[in-house]
Amino acid sequence: MIGGISLCYRTFFGIKRRVLSSVTIQKGLIVDTVRYLSLSNTSNMKLVQFKYNNNLNVVRVGFLDGNNVVDINKVDSSLPSTLLDILKKGDIERVKSLKSKNPPSVPLSAVTLTAPIQGVDKVLCIGLNYKDHCDEQNLTPPPVPMVFGKFSSSIVGPDGAVRLRTDVTKKVDWEVELVVVIGKKASSVKAANAFDYVLGYTIAQDISARDWQKERNMGQFLLGKSMDTFCPIGPCITTSDEIGDPQKLDIKCSLNGVLKQTSNTCQLVHKIEDLIERLSSVMTLLPGDMILTGTPGGVGMYRDPPEYLKPGDVLTNEIQNIGSFDIKVEKF
Amino acid sequence: MIGGISLCYRTFFGIKRRVLSSVTIQKGLIVDTVRYLSLSNTSNMKLVQFKYNNNLNVVRVGFLDGNNVVDINKVDSSLPSTLLDILKKGDIERVKSLKSKNPPSVPLSAVTLTAPIQGVDKVLCIGLNYKDHCDEQNLTPPPVPMVFGKFSSSIVGPDGAVRLRTDVTKKVDWEVELVVVIGKKASSVKAANAFDYVLGYTIAQDISARDWQKERNMGQFLLGKSMDTFCPIGPCITTSDEIGDPQKLDIKCSLNGVLKQTSNTCQLVHKIEDLIERLSSVMTLLPGDMILTGTPGGVGMYRDPPEYLKPGDVLTNEIQNIGSFDIKVEKF
Repeated sequence: MIGGISLCYRTFFGIKRRVLSSVTIQKGLIVDTVRYLSLSNTSNMKLVQFKYNNNLNVVRVGFLDGNNVVDINKVDSSLPSTLLDILKKGDIERVKSLKSKNPPSVPLSAVTLTAPIQGVDKVLCIGLNYKDHCDEQNLTPPPVPMVFGKFSSSIVGPDGAVRLRTDVTKKVDWEVELVVVIGKKASSVKAANAFDYVLGYTIAQDISARDWQKERNMGQFLLGKSMDTFCPIGPCITTSDEIGDPQKLDIKCSLNGVLKQTSNTCQLVHKIEDLIERLSSVMTLLPGDMILTGTPGGVGMYRDPPEYLKPGDVLTNEIQNIGSFDIKVEKF
Repeated sequence: MIGGISLCYRTFFGIKRRVLSSVTIQKGLIVDTVRYLSLSNTSNMKLVQFKYNNNLNVVRVGFLDGNNVVDINKVDSSLPSTLLDILKKGDIERVKSLKSKNPPSVPLSAVTLTAPIQGVDKVLCIGLNYKDHCDEQNLTPPPVPMVFGKFSSSIVGPDGAVRLRTDVTKKVDWEVELVVVIGKKASSVKAANAFDYVLGYTIAQDISARDWQKERNMGQFLLGKSMDTFCPIGPCITTSDEIGDPQKLDIKCSLNGVLKQTSNTCQLVHKIEDLIERLSSVMTLLPGDMILTGTPGGVGMYRDPPEYLKPGDVLTNEIQNIGSFDIKVEKF
């Protein structure tokens, strides 16, 4: 059990995805939902982007209020219309102040959640950053972080799908990860101050075509990591003042309802504050930039026999105090 | 001598950078300038972005007309105000049609050229892609392209500078490269059709911190390649219908007026059409995406003794039928 807060998202998705929901109920994950759903705390800020189910062409920015969603621009039309632009304009505190104004909201069942942020400059990923993921490869954790990247266009949300180019790869694997979302420009930041630059946290799947990552691009990870749709994120960004200790969070990934990865962010080899210090020593981190902090053990390629994604699969991704989201796997 | 067309840019920059210009004149590069400067050909489309010298806060989009620049939005205010947005909206043919309307223009001396495109999704780079660059490392050219990336925020223009973080690296090197700029969405494109998706060509410096590229990031090139300002581009994008054969172009780089790299794009190991086929087989190339096609021999790290950039240096980057631009090196 990942904690009550995550489970409300399972309930949301249950509305639209009954089959998946029943799978996870069978696994005994739905606990404490009622208590959470009645919670409405002004310090609770889970930022989302979404589409109204009766107008799926327009992405809106909002935040959760229990099992409702507040449409930010319906409360204050002078705020930018995307989370990225809110961050770029330095308007996040204005958004947070809306919470205390008892804003109108709509049930989550009336909307479809999308990626909570899009169009960012940098998607930075850390390799080999969980002790248990190093163990499954019989590797010593690296003395310094191994940093690689994805392109921003590979981001998709819970409304999308991982789309497999089955003509060029048959070895697409899962990697659930905690994501640090940068809130403001950060250059040459020291670890001691690193969390001042963090907006909050979301969940990603660092989807990886192992053949391209390991063999087909001369050792550079980029192509295996940045195919279209290879960066699903969701369901929300839990702000720093809400997450608790980001390095004490349960993290899990299930494939078709079968648990594949289960760990805790306390297993991180290189800690978030050290990652921010190192990254910002060589490049300016910009509002919206994401750091995928690495994946725990349990990925497909180190299973015996190895397992890879196929069209029709569903990945369920959960991190304590953030939530959970499902992502479908389809043919490209 | 790189050809008359490139040399006009030297003259442009000479207006603002007399010292540099005199260095290059001493090297005998200024030839045939007058004839070029009188050329005004309707098929000649060199796209630029620029700032008026009396209003350096606003970047404008335009194209060259001899040694003048046409401000696109002053001719047609309904066109988008950046080259990236023009490409995204599919308006490039509208831009090209302006050329025949004898549009008003201003002398290049009244403006400062910036990066001809900014904010793109992907900066893709090809490693070890010139035969002579492989030779200087005693390497056999790789059987498949080695692809790595930079983040878009590392792009700067001729108005900017390469800014060295001298506290974290002392091994920053030059790599002049021909850049393919994608004009429209390209997914699973075959080599035979690849050039249909190319807008044109520009020049980049794939600036590289060799210590981070080779030793300090567990073999992944990203951090050594994507520090702030590590992707200078300019001075223009010469469109495909203007470039001639992009794989028969002289390419040169000088450091403080001393020639360091000189080659021809016929040396490319993996050809442009094959790069587009391979890249688009795994990811959708988007309008504005750039492919840095690799650098010829003559980089600093394989010199004896090795040479690296230092504040105060100036790199001059030239490719036939595109032009030439200088980029300063400063301390971060």
